[in-house]
Amino acid sequence: MISEKMKELLKNNSVIREMFEEGKRLEKIYGKDNVFDFSLGNPSVPAPKEVNEAIIKIVKEEDSNFIHGYMSNSGYEDVREKIANSINEKFSTNFSFKNIIMTVGAASGLNIVLKSILNPKDEVIVFAPYFSEYNNYIQNYDGIVKPIEPNLKDFMPNLEEFEKSINEKTKAVLINTPNNPTGVVYSEEIIIKLTDIMKKKEKELNKQIYLISDEPYRELVYDNITTVPYITKYYDNAIIVYSYSKSLSLPGERIGYVVIPNELENSDEMIDAVTIANRIIGSVNAPSLIQRVIPYCLNSKVDIESYNKNRNLLYKILIENKFECIKPQGAFYIFVKSPIPDEKEFCRTAKKYNLLFVPATSFGCPGYVRIAYCVSYEMIKRSEESFSKLAKEYNM
Amino acid sequence: MISEKMKELLKNNSVIREMFEEGKRLEKIYGKDNVFDFSLGNPSVPAPKEVNEAIIKIVKEEDSNFIHGYMSNSGYEDVREKIANSINEKFSTNFSFKNIIMTVGAASGLNIVLKSILNPKDEVIVFAPYFSEYNNYIQNYDGIVKPIEPNLKDFMPNLEEFEKSINEKTKAVLINTPNNPTGVVYSEEIIIKLTDIMKKKEKELNKQIYLISDEPYRELVYDNITTVPYITKYYDNAIIVYSYSKSLSLPGERIGYVVIPNELENSDEMIDAVTIANRIIGSVNAPSLIQRVIPYCLNSKVDIESYNKNRNLLYKILIENKFECIKPQGAFYIFVKSPIPDEKEFCRTAKKYNLLFVPATSFGCPGYVRIAYCVSYEMIKRSEESFSKLAKEYNM
Repeated sequence: MISEKMKELLKNNSVIREMFEEGKRLEKIYGKDNVFDFSLGNPSVPAPKEVNEAIIKIVKEEDSNFIHGYMSNSGYEDVREKIANSINEKFSTNFSFKNIIMTVGAASGLNIVLKSILNPKDEVIVFAPYFSEYNNYIQNYDGIVKPIEPNLKDFMPNLEEFEKSINEKTKAVLINTPNNPTGVVYSEEIIIKLTDIMKKKEKELNKQIYLISDEPYRELVYDNITTVPYITKYYDNAIIVYSYSKSLSLPGERIGYVVIPNELENSDEMIDAVTIANRIIGSVNAPSLIQRVIPYCLNSKVDIESYNKNRNLLYKILIENKFECIKPQGAFYIFVKSPIPDEKEFCRTAKKYNLLFVPATSFGCPGYVRIAYCVSYEMIKRSEESFSKLAKEYNM
Repeated sequence: MISEKMKELLKNNSVIREMFEEGKRLEKIYGKDNVFDFSLGNPSVPAPKEVNEAIIKIVKEEDSNFIHGYMSNSGYEDVREKIANSINEKFSTNFSFKNIIMTVGAASGLNIVLKSILNPKDEVIVFAPYFSEYNNYIQNYDGIVKPIEPNLKDFMPNLEEFEKSINEKTKAVLINTPNNPTGVVYSEEIIIKLTDIMKKKEKELNKQIYLISDEPYRELVYDNITTVPYITKYYDNAIIVYSYSKSLSLPGERIGYVVIPNELENSDEMIDAVTIANRIIGSVNAPSLIQRVIPYCLNSKVDIESYNKNRNLLYKILIENKFECIKPQGAFYIFVKSPIPDEKEFCRTAKKYNLLFVPATSFGCPGYVRIAYCVSYEMIKRSEESFSKLAKEYNM
């Protein structure tokens, strides 16, 4: 007697979460140290010390009804003002508190944005491979997911196909850079090309097309990358969805925000819509205490060098074992080509060696697997032998 | 370019939230002490000390990745187990961790339950007056709200009309006791009659009809009421939606849970559906740190005597000024008959004396207003003169 939509969802439950449960099962059998669970994007680096220090300070010093109570559905004004100022400093933007709506993480942020804009059958373009949950978020509001075929050379967006795919039904384009699952980071050049196409199409079709940027991995970049382009500077109808889940290692706390710039057409109406959506999907507001913690951590970051060390070691192991992949420049995933076309079969084989990966069919890119390196460095070292056995199985 | 559904919602934005903003505006003009804002259900009594003690203890002693990280979408198993045991002790039920799904407050809990069960055009019966947000929650999933006319004598459910209203399209019945906005508490006798009607109709129509009990005010009861009937003991297809917002004064923290008993038909499927819905509406999981705080507060409660004192004083003022209302036995609202049929006009007049009430048309009960007494005792005392002036204006 559950709903028809839910029956479908029950059938296609999250592969990622399934692997997570499978990992816990294997750990019970083989012991925690002998299972190499590379399936979940759960940060392995602790939150910076400023987080817990701020929690204790706030709880000891501030009024209980204030720090645990309701505030405006868009969040505490002073917190939003400080976040706006911090973005302005970093990216030379010009936001005030009213452009920032605090959310229950980026997942909730995406939901309230999509609820605010989508009419049934409106299309949202995504670039494969893309985070599989986007399918659910878009379908929550009866929207249609329009994936652009992956560019298997470097996993940058396939802009030619993109331009052809925009039509009267296109309501939004959803990008995610640094990317889950590939770890690639779109350069400024690519952002300019992509937004130029969108501007042209907005004129041609005489309609707004939103560019939604899902940015939980913004701060997780390596090598010589210093900043990821801030898309509101390149395109007016842009909406940023940010999360502290990875930058401060707080995924369980559900804290993030949405940025709606004044340049967006009918910006005030959109801000109201997103705020109301935040209330009526049941979030009501982002969790209060952790909202108040954010101003103490605006310049804090997790220890990114730990992820970088993991990235280098895992990439070395993969390459030495002749696996095919590009070295990621952001996030904490490596996207690896399966040695056989059926990557689900490959994942099953990997499981024989207690290696858990996520098959990428759910990301819209069959034939690949996602390997998450937000794990301990020691686990990656211990897993080396398993990777080598797995490679041998495929005569690599 | 916002969605059609959102345009409607923008027009009918929450009256309650509007009054809240109005209150802040008046405070700026007349000073905080001279505005009597009785509009919002924001707890005025601080969280019990165990809450902040637990926060500090957990943050100091436990692993950062554990307390701020992802867990199963339904919440930490040990927390759910302790909640289950606590319910079992209090109500002689037989729940285990798997019957409990931690949620982002009751608002989110209701959303994931409704998402799990509603097909478009399915009907959900509510008893007027009812919490106005139910309209939005039900419409989020294209359900139809079927209000039962209020029983103006004592605001107990109108069971005759209820029985006639159940039909093939009825998917669920949503009750809320102690009630927002009337403060009435359904007795065991009423729960038995109500569930007997539902059992009869389930047989007659040969279908499941869910009884959803929204229980944020369960612990807020006065006079000789010791417990509010636990509905899973009276009806198999029952779902409890609980929140700590009021019992622990943590509304901003967004923490609650859903109970799905084994007795519910296809219970396992429903548990899976609600868990998936929790993930895909973007909550992902209830905030992690505050989840871990709950086991330290299972026997804690806010200082209910403070609310009781407020209730007694406000009721006395109202009655002395000849306003018509019944004395509430639970929650923190008094539901008052407007001296003129148009209660919105009455609210405008009240505002002249800096008294802010919520007109009850949005609760499905025109001609009444909701007065929330989760405010300071001193504010109620200071407001006495305004109530008396307001009464005079209507020659009471």
